[in-house]
Amino acid sequence: MPKRGLFITFEGPESCGKSTQARLLYAYLRKRGLPVVFLREPGGTPVSEKIRKILLSKKNSALTAAAELFLYMASRAQVVEQVIAPALRRKKIVLCDRFLDSTIVYQGYGLGIDIALIQRMGVFATGGIAPDLTILLDAPLKASLAKIGSVKDRIELRSLAYHQRVKTGYFRLARRQPGRIKIVRLAQDKAQTQAVIRGHVDRLLKKG
Amino acid sequence: MPKRGLFITFEGPESCGKSTQARLLYAYLRKRGLPVVFLREPGGTPVSEKIRKILLSKKNSALTAAAELFLYMASRAQVVEQVIAPALRRKKIVLCDRFLDSTIVYQGYGLGIDIALIQRMGVFATGGIAPDLTILLDAPLKASLAKIGSVKDRIELRSLAYHQRVKTGYFRLARRQPGRIKIVRLAQDKAQTQAVIRGHVDRLLKKG
Repeated sequence: MPKRGLFITFEGPESCGKSTQARLLYAYLRKRGLPVVFLREPGGTPVSEKIRKILLSKKNSALTAAAELFLYMASRAQVVEQVIAPALRRKKIVLCDRFLDSTIVYQGYGLGIDIALIQRMGVFATGGIAPDLTILLDAPLKASLAKIGSVKDRIELRSLAYHQRVKTGYFRLARRQPGRIKIVRLAQDKAQTQAVIRGHVDRLLKKG
Repeated sequence: MPKRGLFITFEGPESCGKSTQARLLYAYLRKRGLPVVFLREPGGTPVSEKIRKILLSKKNSALTAAAELFLYMASRAQVVEQVIAPALRRKKIVLCDRFLDSTIVYQGYGLGIDIALIQRMGVFATGGIAPDLTILLDAPLKASLAKIGSVKDRIELRSLAYHQRVKTGYFRLARRQPGRIKIVRLAQDKAQTQAVIRGHVDRLLKKG
């Protein structure tokens, strides 16, 4: 058991299997008897879920890039202060499906908003809480987008070029922070991918 | 008629008569045949009204200071891009009940959030659009707070000390930008206050 809580995030493009892998890891850690909290972003508190609705509703197609960025940050600030920070103080393991890296790549690399500004806002929104480990799932983009199906949310509806910029952004972040961000290629088999992820997490738990 | 649109904002503590005075000015400008748009913040677009509900609902008492700041900025970014900027381009006069100054004093001076950070976010949220004239209504604080009545929103429920910091913040801003921010003391009579406001607006219209 680590001396203090651990914060593990999952990142990757749409429908890359991120949420499935995060849930499998959650089940694994619980089975090992570890105190673990599972969250998705945006969401995780009543206020954040209300914000999530605004962000993902197709009715809000007029939502501007700047408003979108601020809404993601609002949802994050709320879930960090109400859920993530208290859980880490109680030495829990927090698994989060998406976090600040998503905003840097989706709104920064994807929509062209100044990345330095996003990072400054991010430090404020998170109170400086950063993941100890980030699993970046890598899957062929076209296959992932095809998997979304016909009912897409506001972000999923964006162009292939947009999602390509997002992916490029993720790889740039990973190159800059190789210690924290581990790229995991999606294997044919779910269990195979999960084994690689567990390897990263087990190493972190031993260090912790 | 000014060569380009004019942006006039109303600021002041809770229940200082701000909205009433803004509406009276709106009626006056319309009567003069000028193209004028009237807005309140947070609000003014469907997305901004949804955000307004989250911000003012007493149910959201757990809303953190950081989330509150980001939500105000989100609402503002949306109304600037969708309504204020286009109206100013079409040479209209935009009257807005509250704007960025409110965030600087309520979240900065009031809640203690770094004012430089708020200003950087503000420039991003507004795309650099700033008021040409801001009417800051000055009324005795206790009398204003007493006028709110028994049904208070989430912000109105804050302490007298909080509202005192807000008021002090407003006066600091006004001292720093005397050309833009005009302090108007609330007179006994609504019409008297309005006459002072119209004086400031008429001078702006002549210059414009």
